[in-house]
This record gives sequence, C-alpha cells and structure tokens, in this order.
Amino acid sequence: MSILKIARMSDNPVDVPPADMILLVMAGAVARIDNMGADEPCGRFGARRIETGRIALNLREAGDGPLILLFHGITSNSAVFAPLMAQLSNRFTTIAVDQRGHGLSDKPDSGYDAHDYAEDIAGLIRTLDRGRAILVGHSLGARNSVTAAAKYPELVRSVVAIDFTPYIEEEVFDALEARVNAGDQLFSDVDAVEAYLANRYPNIPVPAIKVRAASAYHAVEGGLRPLASPTAMAQTARGLRADLVPAYRDVTKPVLIVRGGESKLVSADALAKTSRLRPDLPVVVVPGADHYVNEVSPEITLRAITNFLDA
Amino acid sequence: MSILKIARMSDNPVDVPPADMILLVMAGAVARIDNMGADEPCGRFGARRIETGRIALNLREAGDGPLILLFHGITSNSAVFAPLMAQLSNRFTTIAVDQRGHGLSDKPDSGYDAHDYAEDIAGLIRTLDRGRAILVGHSLGARNSVTAAAKYPELVRSVVAIDFTPYIEEEVFDALEARVNAGDQLFSDVDAVEAYLANRYPNIPVPAIKVRAASAYHAVEGGLRPLASPTAMAQTARGLRADLVPAYRDVTKPVLIVRGGESKLVSADALAKTSRLRPDLPVVVVPGADHYVNEVSPEITLRAITNFLDA
Repeated sequence: MSILKIARMSDNPVDVPPADMILLVMAGAVARIDNMGADEPCGRFGARRIETGRIALNLREAGDGPLILLFHGITSNSAVFAPLMAQLSNRFTTIAVDQRGHGLSDKPDSGYDAHDYAEDIAGLIRTLDRGRAILVGHSLGARNSVTAAAKYPELVRSVVAIDFTPYIEEEVFDALEARVNAGDQLFSDVDAVEAYLANRYPNIPVPAIKVRAASAYHAVEGGLRPLASPTAMAQTARGLRADLVPAYRDVTKPVLIVRGGESKLVSADALAKTSRLRPDLPVVVVPGADHYVNEVSPEITLRAITNFLDA
Repeated sequence: MSILKIARMSDNPVDVPPADMILLVMAGAVARIDNMGADEPCGRFGARRIETGRIALNLREAGDGPLILLFHGITSNSAVFAPLMAQLSNRFTTIAVDQRGHGLSDKPDSGYDAHDYAEDIAGLIRTLDRGRAILVGHSLGARNSVTAAAKYPELVRSVVAIDFTPYIEEEVFDALEARVNAGDQLFSDVDAVEAYLANRYPNIPVPAIKVRAASAYHAVEGGLRPLASPTAMAQTARGLRADLVPAYRDVTKPVLIVRGGESKLVSADALAKTSRLRPDLPVVVVPGADHYVNEVSPEITLRAITNFLDA
C-alpha cells in the first residue's frame, strides 16, 4: 500500500488529509528510501531514478492522468511535496523531482545555472514521454520551471511559480546565500537537524520540518550531513541572482504566480514590478504564508493550483 | 463573410487586430442589426434570439469549440465584447448575451436581482445544450456569473469576473446608481450620444464608444433613447448592492478575478478583502485600466483569459 493510499484511508471528513498525519507517515517512508541506497527503486513509495541522457534524477511518483512535475527549492528535495501529491494524484500523474545537486539525484561538480536546471526539466519531460507537463515549482524550482517553459513551450502546458519572481533585491539574495551556505554542517542526530530547521524555517509546521529532517540528510562519520551537495548549493545560490526578466517576458505558456503574503524573498515591490512586466499573469497571494508557501499553507496552495488547472 | 473573418483578414502582424478597425466594422454591423428589428435573426453577424423558457434573450455568436458566454455590464449590451470574440472565436464557441432589460432581449417590468439574472444564465446554458460554459462577465455580468456558478456548479466550467467583487463601498454604489439613472435621456442624434458616452467613460477608446453608441440606443420620436429599459436599469442598480460575500465564499468553480488598476468601482481595499475571503482565487490587476477593463485594455484582458483557460 502506498503512502498516499494510507493517507487517503483516513476517516477525516475533509478533503485534505491532516498534514501532520501524512507528513509523519511520509517521513518514515522517506527515511526508508534513504536507507535503501540511491540506486534502488522504492516500490512502496513510487520512488525511482531515471536516466535522462544528461543526468540521473531521483523521482517520487503517484497517481495517473495529465502530467504534473514538482520542483523543490534550494537545499530541499522532492519529499516536501507530499501534501500536494496526496491530493493531486487523485487525477494527475504527479512526479516530484530531486533536482540536480539535491536529494538522491546526481551531483555534478559544476553546472548549476538556470540553463542547466531547465535543460534537466526538458530532458526529463522528453524521457518520460507522457506529453506536455504542468510544472509546479517552489523558489529555485519556480525559477527553473519558468525558464524551461520559456525555452521549450512545446514541452510545457503551464507553470505554477511559487514565490520566486524577477526583481528580487540584491540584499535579499545576500541573506539567502548566507543562509544556504550556513546549512553545510555536521549534526549530531536528527533532533539537532530538526532544531536547526525549526529555527531556520520558523513558520513551517513541525510535521513538515520532520519531513525535511528525514529526507534531506544522510548519515556520515560522526553524525548527519545535508544530502544536497554544499558546492552545488553555493553555485546554485549564486546562480539565482541572474536576471529572470527575459524568461518572464518571453514565456508564452500560462503562469500562475503565487507569493507568500509574508515572504521575505519576494517583496511586494518585486511582485508589483513583475505584474507590470506581465500584467496578464494571474497572481495568488497567500495570507500569512512566508516564502515556504506550499509547506506552510498546503491547502490554499492546492486550491490555487486546482483553480488554475481546472479553469 | 462574418465581421470576425473580416477582422482576421487584416494584414496586421500582431495577434489581436487593431481595436479601431474591428470596432468600427463591428459598429456598422451592430447598426444593421438594430435596423433589422428585435425578432429577426441576423445571419451575417450570428445574432439571434433564443427562448429559454423563462425569457427570450438576444445573442451574438461566433466560432466553434468549448462554450464561452459573455455578459456585459449595466446599461451595456453584447456588442462590447467584439474584440474578445474576434480572438476567442478561433477556438471557442463564443456567445455574447444581451442580459434581461438590456439590448434586444426581453425587458420584464420587474425581476432584476442577482437571482433573476443568474437563473437566466442557468436557463440559457440548459437551452443551448452544449455542455458546461465558461462565463466571462464584466461588472453586472461578473456579479451574475459568479452567482450562477455558485448556485449551478454543474452548468459552469469556470468564471472570469471582471471588476466586480464583494465589499464595494456604499458611496461607490451611490455614485454608480446616480450615473445609471442619469443615462435615461433623449439624444438629438448619434453625435450627441457619442459626446455623452465619451464624457461618461473618459478612458474608453473612441472606437469602443462608437460601438456603444451604435448598439445601445434606438430611434424614437424626436431622437435616440437607450435600448436598456430605464426602470430595469434602476432596479438593477439597486440590486447590485446586495451582499455578494455568500456567492464568492461558496463558489467551488475556478474564478479569475480581474480588476482595473484605476477602477473607481472595485477599490484596492475591496479587492484585498475579497482575496482574504478567497485567497485561492487568482487575481489579475490591469494597469492603467479603469472599471471598463475589457473595452479599455482588450489585449491584456484577452491574454489574462487565455492564460487562465489554457492552464
């Protein structure tokens, strides 16, 4: 029985299973995946590695129907999309991707610019051969999704771009880069990881913090270290500063822009400038959410996505 | 050859034909329809009356594909949607509707609340028997579309609600009601109508003013009078004050909220309150447009609609 089926067996009457339940079960599944080794597919969870010809990527898959690909933010991995996948997999093929340098995917020494990530997306869609994909991306994943849609419109149906836009201020990137690089630490145990993550992401609920702790770290001599490659993260963080105006200006596929109302990454001013650049693109601002919109407010995020896709 | 085909024969390289061209040709077609009498279908333009069982409505139709119904604002009529129909009819069945009390449709003495208009929409969709409809409404038409979608989700695919939300302030309704009631005048000729409309709608381009002048007035003893029934307009204006929160709260179908950035009808505050009520609904704010978004900025409106529908 898959994790998603377990979640749906809940007798909770609301549509979305309780986040703490699904995330806690998920965390267990993720921990098992980590223990199984990177090259071994995990049938229970629908995780597998796929060779696109340019890179091997680790995927988590559930459901059947039109194709939705989900791309996480920097230092994160595909596990964070469990709450969205639990619902979207009712009628979509949902595939969350460990992007290059992250999770259980390949981690080349270099090649972490928007172009590199976008080519991975294009290669993945071609390799999957299931038609055009809906791309849902958070932060780094949003940047990569819009970049791929602008370059390869024939491979993309639409994009949900969560909390990453053009016009992000330099000082915001300075702070982000410092946080990212500070994450390269040795932790004594999972409790230490959770304490660190809870401090770094104060608005992410505890169950979602546990998912990150269980999915994004691996055992090393003396404790736990991030699965994401530190040199890859440093290059990726620098690459986020590249001008995103051309991709947003040129993209012809529908893009839903989602911003956390309390985001410290996408300021109200950056969003306003983006809307002036592309006044035709719809915007959802999630009240009370910070940058980590889909982990802090999974239900509103889910409804925003389905409102967009069902129109 | 239909008006829409004429528009598409333009050698203009941009996707959207020049507004002045299409609107001027349209104005001629509309004038011809007016001269043909209310009960006579107009094959050239695809105009016809349809009996829904509760009311006879005048429609303008073009194109083939999934069904889009377009609903105008108070005192207006279906002719104003020509620029949108010219493009949308490439791949949709587009039907613009003269709503009750307006244009060439029936004008009962009473029955101009949200409920009455929404029942007309439901009856029309059932009578057309072409499956679920996408509803595009401006102002009054947006109020009616969201109301119909909330009550009859099985008849509606999605809604584009242009510049009408809950939380519109009382003083805004006072001003609207005064403007609407002041429109019941005898005009000496079409120049006088155009001068009046240009003053009332200072941001609507001249060609679109000409469409309104040619389509929304009829010859009477001594000059021209509005086709829209004055008593129906007075009742409709009062009815716009009814609380729209329940319909927006309850609607389960996707709704794209479009606001003119300079709208004097939907304030920034009313939009913000609406987004707090339904944070999952996507929003497009069209820069530089006032309340008459689809006439002032047809290209951005069109792209906003297609971004929403193609996601």
